[in-house]
Amino acid sequence: MTASATDSDFAAWMGTIQTRVESALARSLPGPQQVPVRLHQAMRYATLEGGKRVRSLLTFAAGELTGADPARLEDVACAVEMIHAYSLVHDDMPCMDDDRLRRGKPSVHVEYDEATALLVGDALQTLAFQLLAEPALANDAAVQLEMLRTLAVASGSRGMAGGQAIDREATGKTLSQAELEFMHVRKTGALIGAAVKLGALCAGSCPAALEQYGHRVGLAYQVVDDVLDTEASTATLGKTAGKDAKQGKHTYVSAMGVARARAFAEELRCAAHAALDSYGQSAQRLRQLADFIVLRKF
Amino acid sequence: MTASATDSDFAAWMGTIQTRVESALARSLPGPQQVPVRLHQAMRYATLEGGKRVRSLLTFAAGELTGADPARLEDVACAVEMIHAYSLVHDDMPCMDDDRLRRGKPSVHVEYDEATALLVGDALQTLAFQLLAEPALANDAAVQLEMLRTLAVASGSRGMAGGQAIDREATGKTLSQAELEFMHVRKTGALIGAAVKLGALCAGSCPAALEQYGHRVGLAYQVVDDVLDTEASTATLGKTAGKDAKQGKHTYVSAMGVARARAFAEELRCAAHAALDSYGQSAQRLRQLADFIVLRKF
Repeated sequence: MTASATDSDFAAWMGTIQTRVESALARSLPGPQQVPVRLHQAMRYATLEGGKRVRSLLTFAAGELTGADPARLEDVACAVEMIHAYSLVHDDMPCMDDDRLRRGKPSVHVEYDEATALLVGDALQTLAFQLLAEPALANDAAVQLEMLRTLAVASGSRGMAGGQAIDREATGKTLSQAELEFMHVRKTGALIGAAVKLGALCAGSCPAALEQYGHRVGLAYQVVDDVLDTEASTATLGKTAGKDAKQGKHTYVSAMGVARARAFAEELRCAAHAALDSYGQSAQRLRQLADFIVLRKF
Repeated sequence: MTASATDSDFAAWMGTIQTRVESALARSLPGPQQVPVRLHQAMRYATLEGGKRVRSLLTFAAGELTGADPARLEDVACAVEMIHAYSLVHDDMPCMDDDRLRRGKPSVHVEYDEATALLVGDALQTLAFQLLAEPALANDAAVQLEMLRTLAVASGSRGMAGGQAIDREATGKTLSQAELEFMHVRKTGALIGAAVKLGALCAGSCPAALEQYGHRVGLAYQVVDDVLDTEASTATLGKTAGKDAKQGKHTYVSAMGVARARAFAEELRCAAHAALDSYGQSAQRLRQLADFIVLRKF
Protein backbone atom coordinates (compact mmCIF):
# COMPACT_ATOMS: atom_id res chain seq x y z
CA MET A 1 0.00 0.00 0.00
CA THR A 2 1.23 3.54 -0.72
CA ALA A 3 1.44 6.06 2.12
CA SER A 4 -1.64 7.93 0.91
CA ALA A 5 -3.68 4.72 0.56
CA THR A 6 -2.73 3.91 4.17
CA ASP A 7 -3.74 7.42 5.24
CA SER A 8 -7.13 7.27 3.59
CA ASP A 9 -7.70 3.79 4.98
CA PHE A 10 -6.86 5.09 8.48
CA ALA A 11 -9.14 8.09 8.03
CA ALA A 12 -12.00 5.79 6.99
CA TRP A 13 -11.39 3.54 10.01
CA MET A 14 -11.42 6.56 12.32
CA GLY A 15 -14.67 7.79 10.78
CA THR A 16 -16.30 4.39 11.26
CA ILE A 17 -15.33 4.18 14.93
CA GLN A 18 -16.31 7.79 15.62
CA THR A 19 -19.77 7.23 14.11
CA ARG A 20 -20.17 3.97 15.98
CA VAL A 21 -19.22 5.55 19.33
CA GLU A 22 -21.51 8.52 18.69
CA SER A 23 -24.50 6.17 18.20
CA ALA A 24 -23.54 4.14 21.25
CA LEU A 25 -23.32 7.28 23.39
CA ALA A 26 -26.69 8.49 22.12
CA ARG A 27 -28.19 5.13 23.16
CA SER A 28 -26.37 4.93 26.50
CA LEU A 29 -27.32 8.42 27.72
CA PRO A 30 -30.83 8.89 29.17
CA GLY A 31 -33.22 10.21 26.49
CA PRO A 32 -33.71 13.98 26.22
CA GLN A 33 -37.38 13.68 27.24
CA GLN A 34 -36.69 11.58 30.33
CA VAL A 35 -37.21 13.32 33.70
CA PRO A 36 -35.26 15.34 34.84
CA VAL A 37 -35.41 16.75 31.33
CA ARG A 38 -33.02 19.67 31.69
CA LEU A 39 -30.31 17.56 33.32
CA HIS A 40 -30.57 14.83 30.69
CA GLN A 41 -30.52 17.30 27.82
CA ALA A 42 -27.43 18.95 29.31
CA MET A 43 -25.73 15.55 29.75
CA ARG A 44 -26.31 14.89 26.04
CA TYR A 45 -25.12 18.39 25.12
CA ALA A 46 -21.89 17.78 27.06
CA THR A 47 -21.18 14.38 25.55
CA LEU A 48 -22.55 14.13 22.00
CA GLU A 49 -21.01 15.61 18.85
CA GLY A 50 -17.82 16.14 20.76
CA GLY A 51 -14.17 16.05 19.92
CA LYS A 52 -11.95 13.63 18.07
CA ARG A 53 -12.81 10.68 20.32
CA VAL A 54 -9.10 9.87 20.64
CA ARG A 55 -9.76 7.73 23.72
CA SER A 56 -12.40 5.67 21.91
CA LEU A 57 -10.09 5.18 18.94
CA LEU A 58 -7.40 3.87 21.28
CA THR A 59 -9.88 1.53 23.00
CA PHE A 60 -10.99 0.10 19.65
CA ALA A 61 -7.45 -0.20 18.27
CA ALA A 62 -6.26 -2.02 21.41
CA GLY A 63 -9.35 -4.24 21.40
CA GLU A 64 -8.98 -5.09 17.71
CA LEU A 65 -5.38 -6.11 18.41
CA THR A 66 -6.35 -8.43 21.27
CA GLY A 67 -9.45 -9.79 19.52
CA ALA A 68 -12.14 -8.20 21.73
CA ASP A 69 -15.88 -8.21 20.91
CA PRO A 70 -16.74 -4.86 19.24
CA ALA A 71 -20.03 -4.59 21.19
CA ARG A 72 -18.06 -4.62 24.43
CA LEU A 73 -15.58 -2.10 23.10
CA GLU A 74 -18.53 0.24 22.46
CA ASP A 75 -19.60 0.12 26.11
CA VAL A 76 -16.06 0.68 27.32
CA ALA A 77 -15.52 3.55 24.88
CA CYS A 78 -18.75 5.17 26.10
CA ALA A 79 -17.67 4.88 29.74
CA VAL A 80 -14.28 6.48 29.02
CA GLU A 81 -15.85 9.27 26.93
CA MET A 82 -18.31 10.01 29.74
CA ILE A 83 -15.48 10.32 32.27
CA HIS A 84 -13.63 12.59 29.84
CA ALA A 85 -16.75 14.70 29.18
CA TYR A 86 -17.46 15.06 32.92
CA SER A 87 -13.90 16.28 33.52
CA LEU A 88 -14.24 18.89 30.77
CA VAL A 89 -17.57 20.17 32.09
CA HIS A 90 -16.21 20.60 35.62
CA ASP A 91 -12.87 21.94 34.39
CA ASP A 92 -14.60 24.70 32.41
CA MET A 93 -16.58 25.97 35.42
CA PRO A 94 -15.84 29.46 36.76
CA CYS A 95 -14.18 28.14 39.93
CA MET A 96 -11.77 26.08 37.81
CA ASP A 97 -10.49 27.25 34.39
CA ASP A 98 -13.50 29.51 33.73
CA ASP A 99 -13.67 28.67 30.03
CA ARG A 100 -16.73 29.68 28.04
CA LEU A 101 -15.93 27.68 24.90
CA ARG A 102 -15.60 23.93 24.43
CA ARG A 103 -15.60 21.90 21.23
CA GLY A 104 -16.61 25.06 19.37
CA LYS A 105 -19.78 25.51 21.45
CA PRO A 106 -20.60 27.39 24.66
CA SER A 107 -19.49 25.41 27.73
CA VAL A 108 -22.24 23.64 29.69
CA HIS A 109 -22.39 26.24 32.47
CA VAL A 110 -22.79 28.97 29.82
CA GLU A 111 -25.42 27.14 27.75
CA TYR A 112 -27.30 25.99 30.88
CA ASP A 113 -26.12 27.22 34.31
CA GLU A 114 -23.47 26.38 36.90
CA ALA A 115 -25.65 24.16 39.07
CA THR A 116 -26.64 22.11 36.02
CA ALA A 117 -22.99 21.85 34.92
CA LEU A 118 -22.06 20.56 38.37
CA LEU A 119 -24.81 17.92 38.31
CA VAL A 120 -24.06 16.98 34.67
CA GLY A 121 -20.46 16.17 35.56
CA ASP A 122 -21.50 14.26 38.67
CA ALA A 123 -24.11 12.20 36.82
CA LEU A 124 -21.86 11.49 33.82
CA GLN A 125 -19.23 10.06 36.14
CA THR A 126 -21.84 7.84 37.81
CA LEU A 127 -23.18 6.66 34.45
CA ALA A 128 -19.68 5.70 33.30
CA PHE A 129 -19.29 3.31 36.24
CA GLN A 130 -22.83 2.05 35.78
CA LEU A 131 -22.10 1.15 32.15
CA LEU A 132 -18.98 -0.79 33.11
CA ALA A 133 -20.97 -2.74 35.70
CA GLU A 134 -23.63 -3.93 33.21
CA PRO A 135 -23.98 -7.71 33.12
CA ALA A 136 -23.49 -8.05 29.36
CA LEU A 137 -20.06 -6.45 29.25
CA ALA A 138 -17.62 -9.25 30.00
CA ASN A 139 -17.71 -13.03 30.02
CA ASP A 140 -15.72 -13.00 33.21
CA ALA A 141 -17.11 -10.89 36.08
CA ALA A 142 -13.66 -10.79 37.73
CA VAL A 143 -12.18 -9.16 34.60
CA GLN A 144 -15.08 -6.72 34.61
CA LEU A 145 -14.23 -5.73 38.18
CA GLU A 146 -10.63 -5.17 37.06
CA MET A 147 -11.98 -2.87 34.34
CA LEU A 148 -13.95 -0.89 36.92
CA ARG A 149 -10.87 -0.55 39.12
CA THR A 150 -8.77 0.51 36.12
CA LEU A 151 -11.19 3.32 35.27
CA ALA A 152 -11.52 4.40 38.92
CA VAL A 153 -7.78 4.49 39.61
CA ALA A 154 -7.15 6.41 36.36
CA SER A 155 -9.78 9.05 37.10
CA GLY A 156 -9.65 9.51 40.90
CA SER A 157 -7.49 11.49 43.31
CA ARG A 158 -4.40 9.51 42.35
CA GLY A 159 -5.25 9.85 38.64
CA MET A 160 -7.03 12.51 36.62
CA ALA A 161 -8.67 14.45 39.49
CA GLY A 162 -5.36 14.37 41.39
CA GLY A 163 -3.57 15.75 38.33
CA GLN A 164 -6.02 18.64 38.22
CA ALA A 165 -5.41 19.32 41.89
CA ILE A 166 -1.61 19.28 41.49
CA ASP A 167 -2.01 21.59 38.48
CA ARG A 168 -3.81 24.11 40.70
CA GLU A 169 -1.50 23.70 43.69
CA ALA A 170 1.57 24.15 41.46
CA THR A 171 0.44 27.26 39.58
CA GLY A 172 2.95 30.02 40.22
CA LYS A 173 5.62 27.64 41.60
CA THR A 174 8.65 26.28 39.72
CA LEU A 175 8.48 22.63 38.71
CA SER A 176 11.16 20.30 37.36
CA GLN A 177 10.45 18.16 34.29
CA ALA A 178 10.04 15.15 36.58
CA GLU A 179 7.40 16.98 38.63
CA LEU A 180 5.72 18.16 35.44
CA GLU A 181 5.60 14.60 34.16
CA PHE A 182 4.18 13.35 37.46
CA MET A 183 1.39 15.90 37.10
CA HIS A 184 0.64 15.32 33.43
CA VAL A 185 0.83 11.56 33.60
CA ARG A 186 -2.10 11.90 35.97
CA LYS A 187 -4.05 14.79 34.48
CA THR A 188 -4.35 13.51 30.92
CA GLY A 189 -2.16 10.45 30.56
CA ALA A 190 -3.90 8.28 33.13
CA LEU A 191 -7.26 8.24 31.34
CA ILE A 192 -5.65 7.80 27.91
CA GLY A 193 -3.62 4.89 29.24
CA ALA A 194 -6.80 3.44 30.76
CA ALA A 195 -8.56 3.70 27.37
CA VAL A 196 -5.88 1.44 25.86
CA LYS A 197 -5.86 -0.97 28.80
CA LEU A 198 -9.66 -1.25 28.93
CA GLY A 199 -9.81 -2.06 25.20
CA ALA A 200 -7.37 -4.92 25.73
CA LEU A 201 -9.19 -6.08 28.89
CA CYS A 202 -12.35 -6.57 26.82
CA ALA A 203 -10.54 -9.63 25.46
CA GLY A 204 -9.52 -10.81 28.94
CA SER A 205 -6.14 -9.25 29.76
CA CYS A 206 -3.80 -6.39 28.90
CA PRO A 207 -0.21 -7.22 27.83
CA ALA A 208 2.53 -5.12 29.49
CA ALA A 209 3.59 -3.79 26.07
CA LEU A 210 0.19 -2.17 25.61
CA GLU A 211 0.33 -0.60 29.07
CA GLN A 212 3.68 0.88 28.11
CA TYR A 213 2.30 2.11 24.80
CA GLY A 214 -0.66 3.71 26.61
CA HIS A 215 1.61 5.49 29.07
CA ARG A 216 3.71 6.96 26.24
CA VAL A 217 0.87 8.16 24.02
CA GLY A 218 -0.88 9.57 27.09
CA LEU A 219 2.09 11.74 27.92
CA ALA A 220 2.63 12.64 24.24
CA TYR A 221 -0.98 13.80 24.03
CA GLN A 222 -0.41 16.31 26.84
CA VAL A 223 2.89 17.61 25.42
CA VAL A 224 1.23 18.24 22.06
CA ASP A 225 -1.76 19.86 23.76
CA ASP A 226 0.59 22.32 25.44
CA VAL A 227 2.29 23.12 22.11
CA LEU A 228 -1.07 23.63 20.37
CA ASP A 229 -2.30 25.90 23.15
CA THR A 230 0.63 28.15 22.27
CA GLU A 231 0.63 27.82 18.48
CA ALA A 232 -2.91 27.15 17.24
CA SER A 233 -5.87 29.54 17.09
CA THR A 234 -9.07 29.39 19.13
CA ALA A 235 -11.05 28.71 15.94
CA THR A 236 -8.91 25.68 15.07
CA LEU A 237 -8.94 24.25 18.60
CA GLY A 238 -12.63 24.84 19.34
CA LYS A 239 -11.52 25.98 22.81
CA THR A 240 -9.77 29.09 24.06
CA ALA A 241 -6.16 29.15 22.86
CA GLY A 242 -3.26 30.68 24.79
CA LYS A 243 -4.91 30.29 28.16
CA ASP A 244 -2.09 28.28 29.78
CA ALA A 245 0.37 31.18 29.63
CA LYS A 246 -2.32 33.64 30.68
CA GLN A 247 -3.18 31.57 33.74
CA GLY A 248 0.50 31.00 34.61
CA LYS A 249 0.06 27.22 34.20
CA HIS A 250 2.91 24.75 34.17
CA THR A 251 3.22 23.25 30.72
CA TYR A 252 5.91 21.56 28.67
CA VAL A 253 6.18 24.78 26.71
CA SER A 254 6.74 26.91 29.82
CA ALA A 255 9.26 24.33 31.09
CA MET A 256 11.29 23.65 27.93
CA GLY A 257 10.11 25.96 25.16
CA VAL A 258 8.18 25.02 22.01
CA ALA A 259 11.06 23.47 20.06
CA ARG A 260 12.17 21.09 22.82
CA ALA A 261 8.55 20.23 23.64
CA ARG A 262 8.02 19.25 20.00
CA ALA A 263 11.17 17.13 20.07
CA PHE A 264 10.02 15.44 23.30
CA ALA A 265 6.67 14.61 21.70
CA GLU A 266 8.53 13.05 18.76
CA GLU A 267 10.64 10.98 21.18
CA LEU A 268 7.49 9.73 22.85
CA ARG A 269 5.96 8.87 19.47
CA CYS A 270 8.98 6.71 18.65
CA ALA A 271 8.91 5.14 22.11
CA ALA A 272 5.21 4.29 21.63
CA HIS A 273 6.07 2.59 18.34
CA ALA A 274 8.91 0.72 20.05
CA ALA A 275 6.51 -0.67 22.65
CA LEU A 276 4.65 -2.34 19.78
CA ASP A 277 7.75 -4.00 18.29
CA SER A 278 6.68 -7.52 19.14
CA TYR A 279 3.46 -7.05 17.18
CA GLY A 280 3.37 -7.02 13.41
CA GLN A 281 0.74 -5.54 11.13
CA SER A 282 -1.96 -6.21 13.77
CA ALA A 283 -0.72 -3.17 15.77
CA GLN A 284 -0.90 -0.88 12.74
CA ARG A 285 -3.88 1.11 14.05
CA LEU A 286 -2.11 1.79 17.34
CA ARG A 287 0.98 3.01 15.45
CA GLN A 288 -1.18 5.25 13.28
CA LEU A 289 -2.88 6.62 16.38
CA ALA A 290 0.46 7.47 17.98
CA ASP A 291 1.32 9.37 14.79
CA PHE A 292 -2.10 11.02 14.73
CA ILE A 293 -1.80 12.17 18.36
CA VAL A 294 1.64 13.68 17.88
CA LEU A 295 1.23 15.12 14.38
CA ARG A 296 -2.30 16.55 14.81
CA LYS A 297 -2.91 20.25 14.24
CA PHE A 298 -5.87 20.62 16.66
CA MET B 1 -35.78 -6.42 78.44
CA THR B 2 -37.18 -3.10 79.66
CA ALA B 3 -37.56 -0.25 77.19
CA SER B 4 -34.63 1.65 78.64
CA ALA B 5 -32.39 -1.46 78.56
CA THR B 6 -33.29 -1.86 74.87
CA ASP B 7 -32.55 1.81 74.28
CA SER B 8 -29.15 1.69 75.92
CA ASP B 9 -28.33 -1.53 74.07
CA PHE B 10 -29.28 0.16 70.77
CA ALA B 11 -27.21 3.24 71.63
CA ALA B 12 -24.21 1.03 72.38
CA TRP B 13 -24.65 -0.83 69.07
CA MET B 14 -24.84 2.47 67.18
CA GLY B 15 -21.70 3.71 68.88
CA THR B 16 -19.82 0.53 67.98
CA ILE B 17 -20.79 0.74 64.30
CA GLN B 18 -20.08 4.47 64.11
CA THR B 19 -16.58 3.97 65.55
CA ARG B 20 -15.95 1.04 63.25
CA VAL B 21 -17.03 2.96 60.14
CA GLU B 22 -14.96 5.98 61.19
CA SER B 23 -11.81 3.82 61.38
CA ALA B 24 -12.63 2.13 58.08
CA LEU B 25 -13.09 5.50 56.38
CA ALA B 26 -9.80 6.78 57.81
CA ARG B 27 -8.07 3.70 56.34
CA SER B 28 -9.88 3.81 52.98
CA LEU B 29 -9.20 7.47 52.25
CA PRO B 30 -5.75 8.39 50.90
CA GLY B 31 -3.44 9.53 53.72
CA PRO B 32 -3.23 13.25 54.50
CA GLN B 33 0.45 13.36 53.45
CA GLN B 34 -0.09 11.63 50.11
CA VAL B 35 0.28 13.84 47.00
CA PRO B 36 -1.81 15.86 46.13
CA VAL B 37 -1.77 16.78 49.80
CA ARG B 38 -4.36 19.55 49.82
CA LEU B 39 -6.92 17.47 47.91
CA HIS B 40 -6.44 14.44 50.14
CA GLN B 41 -6.66 16.51 53.32
CA ALA B 42 -9.87 18.10 52.04
CA MET B 43 -11.32 14.69 51.16
CA ARG B 44 -10.67 13.58 54.75
CA TYR B 45 -12.12 16.83 56.12
CA ALA B 46 -15.29 16.25 54.09
CA THR B 47 -15.76 12.64 55.14
CA LEU B 48 -14.36 12.03 58.63
CA GLU B 49 -15.99 12.96 61.95
CA GLY B 50 -19.22 13.50 60.13
CA GLY B 51 -22.85 13.03 60.93
CA LYS B 52 -24.88 10.24 62.44
CA ARG B 53 -23.81 7.67 59.81
CA VAL B 54 -27.45 6.63 59.37
CA ARG B 55 -26.65 4.99 56.03
CA SER B 56 -23.85 2.90 57.58
CA LEU B 57 -26.11 1.86 60.44
CA LEU B 58 -28.70 0.68 57.92
CA THR B 59 -26.06 -1.24 55.94
CA PHE B 60 -24.83 -3.01 59.07
CA ALA B 61 -28.33 -3.75 60.38
CA ALA B 62 -29.40 -5.23 57.02
CA GLY B 63 -26.16 -7.19 56.75
CA GLU B 64 -26.44 -8.53 60.30
CA LEU B 65 -29.95 -9.72 59.47
CA THR B 66 -28.84 -11.58 56.33
CA GLY B 67 -25.62 -12.90 57.89
CA ALA B 68 -23.07 -10.85 55.95
CA ASP B 69 -19.34 -10.68 56.75
CA PRO B 70 -18.72 -7.53 58.86
CA ALA B 71 -15.46 -6.76 56.98
CA ARG B 72 -17.44 -6.52 53.73
CA LEU B 73 -20.10 -4.38 55.39
CA GLU B 74 -17.34 -1.94 56.34
CA ASP B 75 -16.27 -1.50 52.71
CA VAL B 76 -19.85 -1.06 51.57
CA ALA B 77 -20.59 1.43 54.35
CA CYS B 78 -17.49 3.43 53.38
CA ALA B 79 -18.57 3.54 49.73
CA VAL B 80 -22.05 4.77 50.63
CA GLU B 81 -20.70 7.36 53.09
CA MET B 82 -18.31 8.66 50.40
CA ILE B 83 -21.16 9.09 47.91
CA HIS B 84 -23.17 10.87 50.62
CA ALA B 85 -20.21 13.11 51.56
CA TYR B 86 -19.54 14.01 47.91
CA SER B 87 -23.18 15.01 47.45
CA LEU B 88 -23.04 17.27 50.53
CA VAL B 89 -19.81 18.95 49.40
CA HIS B 90 -21.22 19.74 45.94
CA ASP B 91 -24.64 20.65 47.34
CA ASP B 92 -23.11 23.26 49.66
CA MET B 93 -21.25 25.05 46.86
CA PRO B 94 -22.25 28.62 45.99
CA CYS B 95 -23.82 27.60 42.64
CA MET B 96 -26.05 25.11 44.49
CA ASP B 97 -27.42 25.75 48.01
CA ASP B 98 -24.58 28.11 48.99
CA ASP B 99 -24.34 26.82 52.55
CA ARG B 100 -21.32 27.76 54.66
CA LEU B 101 -21.98 25.33 57.51
CA ARG B 102 -22.02 21.53 57.47
CA ARG B 103 -21.88 19.10 60.37
CA GLY B 104 -21.11 22.06 62.64
CA LYS B 105 -17.97 23.02 60.66
CA PRO B 106 -17.30 25.35 57.73
CA SER B 107 -18.28 23.72 54.41
CA VAL B 108 -15.40 22.42 52.26
CA HIS B 109 -15.46 25.36 49.83
CA VAL B 110 -15.24 27.75 52.82
CA GLU B 111 -12.48 25.86 54.66
CA TYR B 112 -10.52 25.27 51.41
CA ASP B 113 -11.81 26.84 48.17
CA GLU B 114 -14.41 26.18 45.48
CA ALA B 115 -12.09 24.41 43.05
CA THR B 116 -10.92 22.06 45.81
CA ALA B 117 -14.54 21.39 46.83
CA LEU B 118 -15.40 20.49 43.25
CA LEU B 119 -12.45 18.06 42.98
CA VAL B 120 -13.11 16.63 46.46
CA GLY B 121 -16.65 15.68 45.44
CA ASP B 122 -15.49 14.26 42.12
CA ALA B 123 -12.73 12.18 43.70
CA LEU B 124 -14.90 10.91 46.57
CA GLN B 125 -17.41 9.61 44.06
CA THR B 126 -14.66 7.82 42.14
CA LEU B 127 -13.22 6.31 45.32
CA ALA B 128 -16.64 4.96 46.31
CA PHE B 129 -16.86 2.96 43.09
CA GLN B 130 -13.24 1.90 43.39
CA LEU B 131 -13.88 0.48 46.87
CA LEU B 132 -16.86 -1.53 45.66
CA ALA B 133 -14.73 -2.97 42.85
CA GLU B 134 -11.97 -4.27 45.17
CA PRO B 135 -11.33 -8.00 44.78
CA ALA B 136 -11.81 -8.86 48.45
CA LEU B 137 -15.33 -7.52 48.76
CA ALA B 138 -17.55 -10.38 47.63
CA ASN B 139 -17.19 -14.10 47.10
CA ASP B 140 -19.18 -13.82 43.93
CA ALA B 141 -17.99 -11.27 41.36
CA ALA B 142 -21.44 -11.20 39.73
CA VAL B 143 -23.01 -10.12 43.04
CA GLN B 144 -20.31 -7.49 43.37
CA LEU B 145 -21.24 -6.11 39.95
CA GLU B 146 -24.86 -5.95 41.11
CA MET B 147 -23.69 -3.93 44.12
CA LEU B 148 -21.87 -1.50 41.83
CA ARG B 149 -24.98 -1.10 39.68
CA THR B 150 -27.14 -0.60 42.78
CA LEU B 151 -24.94 2.23 44.01
CA ALA B 152 -24.71 3.80 40.53
CA VAL B 153 -28.45 3.72 39.85
CA ALA B 154 -29.21 5.14 43.31
CA SER B 155 -26.79 8.04 42.94
CA GLY B 156 -26.96 8.98 39.25
CA SER B 157 -29.28 11.10 37.10
CA ARG B 158 -32.22 8.79 37.78
CA GLY B 159 -31.39 8.71 41.48
CA MET B 160 -29.79 11.19 43.87
CA ALA B 161 -28.31 13.61 41.28
CA GLY B 162 -31.61 13.54 39.37
CA GLY B 163 -33.49 14.35 42.56
CA GLN B 164 -31.26 17.39 43.09
CA ALA B 165 -31.93 18.49 39.51
CA ILE B 166 -35.72 18.13 39.89
CA ASP B 167 -35.49 20.04 43.17
CA ARG B 168 -33.89 22.96 41.31
CA GLU B 169 -36.19 22.77 38.29
CA ALA B 170 -39.27 22.71 40.54
CA THR B 171 -38.37 25.62 42.84
CA GLY B 172 -41.10 28.26 42.56
CA LYS B 173 -43.57 25.89 40.86
CA THR B 174 -46.50 24.07 42.53
CA LEU B 175 -46.04 20.32 43.05
CA SER B 176 -48.54 17.64 44.07
CA GLN B 177 -47.66 15.16 46.84
CA ALA B 178 -47.03 12.52 44.16
CA GLU B 179 -44.55 14.81 42.40
CA LEU B 180 -42.94 15.68 45.70
CA GLU B 181 -42.54 12.01 46.52
CA PHE B 182 -41.05 11.31 43.08
CA MET B 183 -38.45 13.99 43.77
CA HIS B 184 -37.65 12.99 47.34
CA VAL B 185 -37.55 9.28 46.68
CA ARG B 186 -34.66 10.15 44.39
CA LYS B 187 -32.93 12.96 46.26
CA THR B 188 -32.52 11.24 49.61
CA GLY B 189 -34.46 8.00 49.57
CA ALA B 190 -32.57 6.33 46.74
CA LEU B 191 -29.22 6.29 48.53
CA ILE B 192 -30.77 5.30 51.86
CA GLY B 193 -32.59 2.44 50.14
CA ALA B 194 -29.31 1.45 48.48
CA ALA B 195 -27.56 1.40 51.87
CA VAL B 196 -30.06 -1.24 53.06
CA LYS B 197 -29.90 -3.25 49.84
CA LEU B 198 -26.09 -3.22 49.69
CA GLY B 199 -25.87 -4.50 53.27
CA ALA B 200 -28.09 -7.43 52.36
CA LEU B 201 -26.21 -8.04 49.10
CA CYS B 202 -23.00 -8.55 51.10
CA ALA B 203 -24.57 -11.89 52.03
CA GLY B 204 -25.52 -12.68 48.42
CA SER B 205 -29.01 -11.29 47.81
CA CYS B 206 -31.56 -8.76 49.02
CA PRO B 207 -35.07 -9.98 49.95
CA ALA B 208 -37.99 -7.89 48.56
CA ALA B 209 -39.11 -7.10 52.13
CA LEU B 210 -35.84 -5.30 52.81
CA GLU B 211 -36.11 -3.31 49.57
CA GLN B 212 -39.57 -2.22 50.70
CA TYR B 213 -38.26 -1.33 54.16
CA GLY B 214 -35.45 0.71 52.59
CA HIS B 215 -37.85 2.63 50.37
CA ARG B 216 -40.03 3.54 53.36
CA VAL B 217 -37.30 4.65 55.74
CA GLY B 218 -35.67 6.60 52.89
CA LEU B 219 -38.80 8.62 52.34
CA ALA B 220 -39.39 8.99 56.09
CA TYR B 221 -35.87 10.38 56.48
CA GLN B 222 -36.64 13.19 54.03
CA VAL B 223 -40.02 14.03 55.58
CA VAL B 224 -38.40 14.33 59.02
CA ASP B 225 -35.55 16.40 57.55
CA ASP B 226 -38.10 18.87 56.21
CA VAL B 227 -39.83 19.09 59.60
CA LEU B 228 -36.53 19.62 61.42
CA ASP B 229 -35.47 22.33 58.96
CA THR B 230 -38.57 24.21 60.12
CA GLU B 231 -38.52 23.38 63.83
CA ALA B 232 -34.93 22.83 64.97
CA SER B 233 -32.16 25.37 65.46
CA THR B 234 -28.96 25.73 63.42
CA ALA B 235 -26.93 24.79 66.51
CA THR B 236 -28.85 21.53 66.97
CA LEU B 237 -28.71 20.58 63.27
CA GLY B 238 -25.07 21.55 62.64
CA LYS B 239 -26.27 23.03 59.34
CA THR B 240 -28.26 26.16 58.52
CA ALA B 241 -31.88 25.77 59.69
CA GLY B 242 -34.88 27.32 57.95
CA LYS B 243 -33.21 27.50 54.56
CA ASP B 244 -35.89 25.53 52.70
CA ALA B 245 -38.56 28.18 53.20
CA LYS B 246 -36.06 30.96 52.53
CA GLN B 247 -35.07 29.39 49.21
CA GLY B 248 -38.70 28.66 48.25
CA LYS B 249 -37.97 24.91 48.18
CA HIS B 250 -40.63 22.25 47.86
CA THR B 251 -40.80 20.28 51.08
CA TYR B 252 -43.34 18.14 52.87
CA VAL B 253 -43.85 21.04 55.26
CA SER B 254 -44.60 23.51 52.45
CA ALA B 255 -46.93 20.96 50.84
CA MET B 256 -48.88 19.70 53.86
CA GLY B 257 -47.87 21.71 56.92
CA VAL B 258 -45.86 20.51 59.92
CA ALA B 259 -48.60 18.51 61.64
CA ARG B 260 -49.53 16.44 58.59
CA ALA B 261 -45.86 15.96 57.68
CA ARG B 262 -45.23 14.56 61.16
CA ALA B 263 -48.24 12.24 60.79
CA PHE B 264 -46.97 11.08 57.38
CA ALA B 265 -43.56 10.29 58.87
CA GLU B 266 -45.28 8.23 61.56
CA GLU B 267 -47.25 6.33 58.87
CA LEU B 268 -44.00 5.56 57.07
CA ARG B 269 -42.40 4.38 60.31
CA CYS B 270 -45.25 1.91 60.83
CA ALA B 271 -45.07 0.81 57.20
CA ALA B 272 -41.31 0.20 57.58
CA HIS B 273 -42.03 -1.99 60.62
CA ALA B 274 -44.74 -3.82 58.65
CA ALA B 275 -42.25 -4.68 55.90
CA LEU B 276 -40.25 -6.57 58.53
CA ASP B 277 -43.22 -8.64 59.80
CA SER B 278 -41.90 -11.95 58.49
CA TYR B 279 -38.70 -11.48 60.53
CA GLY B 280 -38.62 -11.93 64.28
CA GLN B 281 -36.09 -10.58 66.71
CA SER B 282 -33.35 -10.69 64.02
CA ALA B 283 -34.82 -7.54 62.44
CA GLN B 284 -34.81 -5.63 65.74
CA ARG B 285 -31.98 -3.27 64.70
CA LEU B 286 -33.81 -2.30 61.52
CA ARG B 287 -36.97 -1.57 63.54
CA GLN B 288 -34.99 0.51 66.01
CA LEU B 289 -33.40 2.41 63.12
CA ALA B 290 -36.81 3.21 61.63
CA ASP B 291 -37.78 4.61 65.03
CA PHE B 292 -34.49 6.48 65.33
CA ILE B 293 -34.90 8.07 61.88
CA VAL B 294 -38.44 9.26 62.54
CA LEU B 295 -38.14 10.23 66.20
CA ARG B 296 -34.71 11.96 66.01
CA LYS B 297 -34.40 15.60 67.06
CA PHE B 298 -31.49 16.51 64.74
